[in-house]
Amino acid sequence: MNLHFKTNERGNLDIGGADALELAKEYGTPLYVIDEMRVRDNYQRVHQAFSQEYADFQIFYAAKANTNLAVMKILEQEGSGIDAVSPGEIYTALLAGFDPDRILFTGNNVTTPELKYALDAGVRMNLDSVSMLERLVKLPGAEGTKISFRVNPMVGAGHHDHCITGGKLSKFGIMEHEAVEIYQKAQDLGFQPVGIHTHIGSGILDPEPFKLAVEVLMDVAGRVHQDAGVKFEFIDFGGGLGIPYTPEEPVLDIEQFAREIVALYRTKLQEYGIDNPTMCIEPGRYIVGDASYLLTRVNTVKQSYRKFVGVDAGFNTLLRPTMYGSYHHIMVADKPEATPTQNIDVAGNVCESGDLFARDRPVPEIKEGDVLSIMNAGAYAFSMASQYNSRPLPAEVIVMNGEADVIREKETYADLLSKQNVPLRFLK
Amino acid sequence: MNLHFKTNERGNLDIGGADALELAKEYGTPLYVIDEMRVRDNYQRVHQAFSQEYADFQIFYAAKANTNLAVMKILEQEGSGIDAVSPGEIYTALLAGFDPDRILFTGNNVTTPELKYALDAGVRMNLDSVSMLERLVKLPGAEGTKISFRVNPMVGAGHHDHCITGGKLSKFGIMEHEAVEIYQKAQDLGFQPVGIHTHIGSGILDPEPFKLAVEVLMDVAGRVHQDAGVKFEFIDFGGGLGIPYTPEEPVLDIEQFAREIVALYRTKLQEYGIDNPTMCIEPGRYIVGDASYLLTRVNTVKQSYRKFVGVDAGFNTLLRPTMYGSYHHIMVADKPEATPTQNIDVAGNVCESGDLFARDRPVPEIKEGDVLSIMNAGAYAFSMASQYNSRPLPAEVIVMNGEADVIREKETYADLLSKQNVPLRFLK
Repeated sequence: MNLHFKTNERGNLDIGGADALELAKEYGTPLYVIDEMRVRDNYQRVHQAFSQEYADFQIFYAAKANTNLAVMKILEQEGSGIDAVSPGEIYTALLAGFDPDRILFTGNNVTTPELKYALDAGVRMNLDSVSMLERLVKLPGAEGTKISFRVNPMVGAGHHDHCITGGKLSKFGIMEHEAVEIYQKAQDLGFQPVGIHTHIGSGILDPEPFKLAVEVLMDVAGRVHQDAGVKFEFIDFGGGLGIPYTPEEPVLDIEQFAREIVALYRTKLQEYGIDNPTMCIEPGRYIVGDASYLLTRVNTVKQSYRKFVGVDAGFNTLLRPTMYGSYHHIMVADKPEATPTQNIDVAGNVCESGDLFARDRPVPEIKEGDVLSIMNAGAYAFSMASQYNSRPLPAEVIVMNGEADVIREKETYADLLSKQNVPLRFLK
Repeated sequence: MNLHFKTNERGNLDIGGADALELAKEYGTPLYVIDEMRVRDNYQRVHQAFSQEYADFQIFYAAKANTNLAVMKILEQEGSGIDAVSPGEIYTALLAGFDPDRILFTGNNVTTPELKYALDAGVRMNLDSVSMLERLVKLPGAEGTKISFRVNPMVGAGHHDHCITGGKLSKFGIMEHEAVEIYQKAQDLGFQPVGIHTHIGSGILDPEPFKLAVEVLMDVAGRVHQDAGVKFEFIDFGGGLGIPYTPEEPVLDIEQFAREIVALYRTKLQEYGIDNPTMCIEPGRYIVGDASYLLTRVNTVKQSYRKFVGVDAGFNTLLRPTMYGSYHHIMVADKPEATPTQNIDVAGNVCESGDLFARDRPVPEIKEGDVLSIMNAGAYAFSMASQYNSRPLPAEVIVMNGEADVIREKETYADLLSKQNVPLRFLK
């Protein structure tokens, strides 16, 4: 079992020193519970692994994974930067106390008002297209701005195509072969291009695909350095560090990973004669994924043509299983280590046939009233939640040393209507 | 072209008498625009088609398709009932002025507090499981309640399996073969079971699959009537009426559809000696689907390995293309009928590679600044929207006789944080 979890002396699931059953009882379900210490540990583990190999190293936490203010605060305290993909994330990061220089804005299909927002905020601008560059230059105050570009790595067959978000079909970034020209153009327009960025797929559990990204990006950076004379202050390899979702998946050996990546990075710096720029990565899932739990209570056990265990959360609460077919491990909170005795479907409360958290899943005995914990619910979980089926968003608590704080109140039915306005003609 | 749309005298897309370009300019983008008259027309068309064949006919609008208060108000005025799947939908329907008897609550994996909410609201209770029945009976005031059951139609091979939400894998309803026993049990527990319900898949464009549902449900109802002595006050065949999403898909011939369904219904009533209960259906998509438009502005035209047109909406705004691979037709608002001259990808602004509204879509020339209209954005569109990527939810307007009213204000960045609370220890 490679999943991160603890069992307390009562045999119940422990989250940050609190008992999952008691949390469910006190705060109701469905409930997201964040283990503060686990967020800190995850951050520190990856930061230490890299910085001991290369001192000038910076993490930009991929805020879209979990934009909770408290999570942002934790990462601010730990020394992280923020990978922001929208003005809303910039706003949240600034409110959480991040210095603008610690925020890297990597937008995709950004409007001009959004560009202006980011420029006025003083954050680092990582551009995704020539269109962004040409619109940015027209904004007051843009002259002389330090910028970087996101590069779409064109990776050929046999090179782990499946986990590359770049490539021929990708909407992201500028093409490798136009990089020199675009950096030159940026200089001609009066910008200071000082960074370069890429991002390959997510869920990476060994160094090989990531090394590919490093290699491709460093080769592009080398050409841009040599042919356009760009002096890089930072090189950012994006995110993608994975965590095990099934009990069998391996845990990423982060120290080995860092050693291999940094060795390749150093080799490439030397090959192209690039001075030692800050090395950046953008983990999201790796930092928050296994630090949060979705607690949901069983309300229905139904023997239909199959056996269903019905819970009080749905794909509105946690979208990944339905949208991506993602596996999330499910534990019974009062017996997290019990041996499976049956295979059942875990069904949510949304009125769609695809609303299942698990199909044919081996589980121990489960009865109505039991609390289930859906594991690894920290990344792309609450941040993708919706009010679909007119269900108010659930509460979130954070736990530290056994003490829980509500960091997000449960919505009410009234909140479903808070922005609505009924024209008078319907009221007469 | 079977899609519903109009072009005004300027050659621009007309929505309820308003110019789509002007709406986009005045209210900003992304923007959902509802054509009030189209909602009314759609409702009236289906109501008339059925009620002229069978007078005791009732529509329960599937509110989950679009829970906007103004839409609910329109349907209340038209005489519709509401198919509610959650307490939040009951709350919304009551606020919109629906009498409780016009609300049918069909929950799935319902908690006991939710059951109590529905019971206290006095709405019609359509039960999904024996568990619901056994928990309902324990609630104060449950005795003597009129109830119905959702039946999972067990449909064999060759019977349009693909569009049946029932069947062996479905989490919904009670099994056909246990229906008599469960209705008997409900009577023994002191309930008045007076209804029966089923629901097959969505997007139905011809009568055949729906006739199957009618046949199966009527056979179950017949057995329940004859063997358990249940006198049905209503029989509800659920939703599923489709609309064309592509220009080539056929328009459902609703009059022919109603004739065939009602003929079968009458035959089955006679076969089983069932008195004439109210016939009910639950359209959602059919009523609101083509009555709303998502207007989004092009901010980026990018020639990468493919050509991308980037807009200011994303799958947070409209989930269906990314989640279900659904086709939504896209028109350029100032030339909705222009001939395609190129194939491009229409990309959203979410930082995920799957965030595309269209791949390889034939379109006319499109330039930055153009307003696109994503068609058929009335059903399962706003109701599934989220704040993912920290993007505030967009505004909605409703148009009648060329006059627009804001029925939902655009959220602000502050709204992203409105339920959040930062513990003191992070602020010191």
